[in-house]
Amino acid sequence: MGTSIKSVDCKLFRVPLPEVMNDAKHGDHTHFELITSTITLEDGSTGTGYTYTGGKGGNAIKAMVDYDIAPALIGKDGSDIDGIYDFLEWHMHYVGRGGIVSFAVSTIDIALWDIRCKKAEKPLWQMAGGAGNTCKAYCGGIDLQFPIPKLLKNMEGYLSAGFNAVKIKIGRENLDEDIERIKAVREFIGPDVTFMVDANYSMTVDKAIEAINRFREYDITWFEEPIIPDNYIGFSQIADATGFPLAMGENLHTIHEFEYAMDQAKLSFVQPDASNCGGITGWLAAARLADKHNIPACSHGMQELHVSLVSAQPNSGWLEVHSFPIDQYTKRPLVVENHLAVAPDTPGVGVEFDWEKLAAFQSK
Amino acid sequence: MGTSIKSVDCKLFRVPLPEVMNDAKHGDHTHFELITSTITLEDGSTGTGYTYTGGKGGNAIKAMVDYDIAPALIGKDGSDIDGIYDFLEWHMHYVGRGGIVSFAVSTIDIALWDIRCKKAEKPLWQMAGGAGNTCKAYCGGIDLQFPIPKLLKNMEGYLSAGFNAVKIKIGRENLDEDIERIKAVREFIGPDVTFMVDANYSMTVDKAIEAINRFREYDITWFEEPIIPDNYIGFSQIADATGFPLAMGENLHTIHEFEYAMDQAKLSFVQPDASNCGGITGWLAAARLADKHNIPACSHGMQELHVSLVSAQPNSGWLEVHSFPIDQYTKRPLVVENHLAVAPDTPGVGVEFDWEKLAAFQSK
Ligand SMILES: [Mg+2]
Ligand SMILES: [Mg+2]
Repeated sequence: MGTSIKSVDCKLFRVPLPEVMNDAKHGDHTHFELITSTITLEDGSTGTGYTYTGGKGGNAIKAMVDYDIAPALIGKDGSDIDGIYDFLEWHMHYVGRGGIVSFAVSTIDIALWDIRCKKAEKPLWQMAGGAGNTCKAYCGGIDLQFPIPKLLKNMEGYLSAGFNAVKIKIGRENLDEDIERIKAVREFIGPDVTFMVDANYSMTVDKAIEAINRFREYDITWFEEPIIPDNYIGFSQIADATGFPLAMGENLHTIHEFEYAMDQAKLSFVQPDASNCGGITGWLAAARLADKHNIPACSHGMQELHVSLVSAQPNSGWLEVHSFPIDQYTKRPLVVENHLAVAPDTPGVGVEFDWEKLAAFQSK
Repeated sequence: MGTSIKSVDCKLFRVPLPEVMNDAKHGDHTHFELITSTITLEDGSTGTGYTYTGGKGGNAIKAMVDYDIAPALIGKDGSDIDGIYDFLEWHMHYVGRGGIVSFAVSTIDIALWDIRCKKAEKPLWQMAGGAGNTCKAYCGGIDLQFPIPKLLKNMEGYLSAGFNAVKIKIGRENLDEDIERIKAVREFIGPDVTFMVDANYSMTVDKAIEAINRFREYDITWFEEPIIPDNYIGFSQIADATGFPLAMGENLHTIHEFEYAMDQAKLSFVQPDASNCGGITGWLAAARLADKHNIPACSHGMQELHVSLVSAQPNSGWLEVHSFPIDQYTKRPLVVENHLAVAPDTPGVGVEFDWEKLAAFQSK
């Protein structure tokens, strides 16, 4: 058959970051890993999907694609994206669900969407909802250990790059320091810039409530991952105690985790990441579920892809512009106009890697 | 330091099964994968831990141990098992939780317990609870597609090997066939043999309720995984509608998943598997949680290790004797006396691999 899958070629890159970056729970980031899967159909059409990590797990993701997923996909109909998604769920179920399987499946799903959009000669934003081609965007740093002057210099960079929304990490041992940093940032950016904070699940429920009561006066749009993502009930306790808007999603890897989060966690924003929740198919399922709950669909990481997904939703939320600069290794780094991120209009998912620029970082 | 970790040596084996085996959702099993991690401390002491899969994911598990876990453990105190467990949780969090990470961490944790028990010159059952050294045991086949005569021949084999409890797979498309098989087995084994069924999460809530109402008359001790493990509320709906004892646990990979299951799923039995829920540390945490909920701690798979864990608990449940014959590749295949499985008395976790027998199946 013309649309049968002929080959799956998976590559791993270990890309150095411009500087060491740190948050409350992930330790030092010196590199990000980029794992790409390029799928070729019998008819010669090709597409590339990808995922990324903060430096760990990339070899496992590539091993899973190479040994367990690619051989099982050869000969399957590459135009049947939902069928392949469902097949892979059961094929990998015993060593899933979530975790590495979700990352590996994401690379496949995005590659198949790339082919689908190219065949339709349409950009992803049109194929994945079509509600619009621009969305709100904010810059988020991994800046927990930056001294305040450096933190403010980061803010200056975001604003001069055309953004009017920012996010910082919190979760230092001493809450006074978090509050001092929040105050300094708010004073620096002024009252009109949107401002979020992210504790990377480093707090207890009680500490999170205390933090909210202390930073409430600084007009914070959301508090992201105050506590571990597994503790849905804990999120709802924080929401009940404070009425404050909470966000999470980057650590939810299956539709079931999103269902529990939206049923039980009383979120105000949800931030699925197509690189770790099953690709575009998984991201759209989470976004649709969010819409049912009247929650805006935001994103985590890989802005060069999510710009198309977030823009396309009726419940379009905020695009995170993450400090892993994947888009700098593509032919079209993120475009921002009038404070809005703009989705690419090229057929496909709109993420074409600069393989020459990446070549130096490929793992053997 | 004498107890610093000097090396972690991870091996992958792909071991053929005596025959192709099939259940409702995992497809055909032709091999199992065995992944071993041998840890050596500076003082020369060594221990081996392991995990297994139904044939997929082994390369990813080994890649994670080799690239992400082993390098981070060198120099850490190998006697601080809880500290290493906690470290690995956060070290691998972004590509966790659960999934491949839980399998990889299990190999490390079991190896460290092996060293701990050897240093204490005590067997695992004494170090992991000490309540006893024998436990109830049943044989479970992966026999969904076996014709009834062959299914009954399996039962005969179990009984003549000294067991008085059996489990079969159900979940054929046509429920009539499940009922026919259950009836045939009950008639064959007689009224005094304990009998469980396992649908490998292939049913809906409604179908599971219908199945229970039809097989209730055959004195079934538990219904295992009627529906997907993620649907805790669905389990409780089945329990409420039927009052029938439900079991699961082989697909719960984090303590948070066990917490939700025990809080929300109304289980009568829980079956953690130390190969995929964080090793002995993870299994014991699940068993303690079960005790608080007055639920017997059973096990899934790798009977040669679980015999020590299940025997040692105050809330000792049923040991599954799985049809992946890992114990046949150890120096002490499972011992059964008076229908009870007997834990080894040798210092260590009691699982010493026959490396010569395994050599032919090692992956390069
Ligand atoms: Mg975040
Ligand atoms: Mg089972």
